[in-house]
Amino acid sequence: MGRPWILDYDGANCTIGAAVGIIGERWTFLVLREVFNGVRRFDDMQRRTQAPRQILSDRLGRLVDRGLLRKVPYQEHGQRSRHEYRLTEAGLDLYPVLVALMQWGDRHAVSPAGPLALLTHRDCGERVRLELTCGAGHKLASAREVTPLPGPGARKTA
Amino acid sequence: MGRPWILDYDGANCTIGAAVGIIGERWTFLVLREVFNGVRRFDDMQRRTQAPRQILSDRLGRLVDRGLLRKVPYQEHGQRSRHEYRLTEAGLDLYPVLVALMQWGDRHAVSPAGPLALLTHRDCGERVRLELTCGAGHKLASAREVTPLPGPGARKTA
Repeated sequence: MGRPWILDYDGANCTIGAAVGIIGERWTFLVLREVFNGVRRFDDMQRRTQAPRQILSDRLGRLVDRGLLRKVPYQEHGQRSRHEYRLTEAGLDLYPVLVALMQWGDRHAVSPAGPLALLTHRDCGERVRLELTCGAGHKLASAREVTPLPGPGARKTA
Repeated sequence: MGRPWILDYDGANCTIGAAVGIIGERWTFLVLREVFNGVRRFDDMQRRTQAPRQILSDRLGRLVDRGLLRKVPYQEHGQRSRHEYRLTEAGLDLYPVLVALMQWGDRHAVSPAGPLALLTHRDCGERVRLELTCGAGHKLASAREVTPLPGPGARKTA
């Protein structure tokens, strides 16, 4: 195979790198999984992820700082005010990342019992999946049908 | 909002958790990015990711052990035999994870210059994207249209 063009370009402006720099960490994924599942409170997250409290607190703080989660106060009767965590619009946009991980896991890392959860379409009940498509409406079977090209942020290396 | 059903279930058999346990780490994502870009040789990967050699070697080894990459020997004229890294079928199936990260990064973590790379359909040249669809052929606009349900591997907590 030929030399890939990407070798002649600087890795700067790679948006995979940028995204991974923000969320590419085990506990961060697990926190996001919980929030997408509707789990919004610290103690629930802590119990489900088994993350050490200090790490969970740190990861939640970073996700808030990055604008992916926001803190919303709540108060239960007779208790002090607390806050829960909700996804911002930028956070909601991470959903395909989680679904892609889940889809891969369902295929390659599933236990004999089967997966814990199934994703269904709220309106019709059918199973949800991610599809690789193109602007002309073609469905792509795999990465082999994709050609990466230099984008506007590509800079040749010196 | 109501209490999410997932709180009553054991986190075991969660395939997001399983997938993240395998690939949920910064350097691992960057290695996979390189391989999907056609970069297959250690020195090229090292230069592009800036990963310390020991870390890169460790992550490549884990990906081979997990069956996501395989080592293929090659020899250049007058040099000793070396090997390069290629995706297995299970590795190729990770592509949507990378595309999902890239799509999110293109929207929320892009530099003013724009993204480094654009993904195009090999056959028609149109831009490639991930779409959330359902078995009935509906396109879903966001995570809000997805209802997660307990799957076969769901176990109630005691």
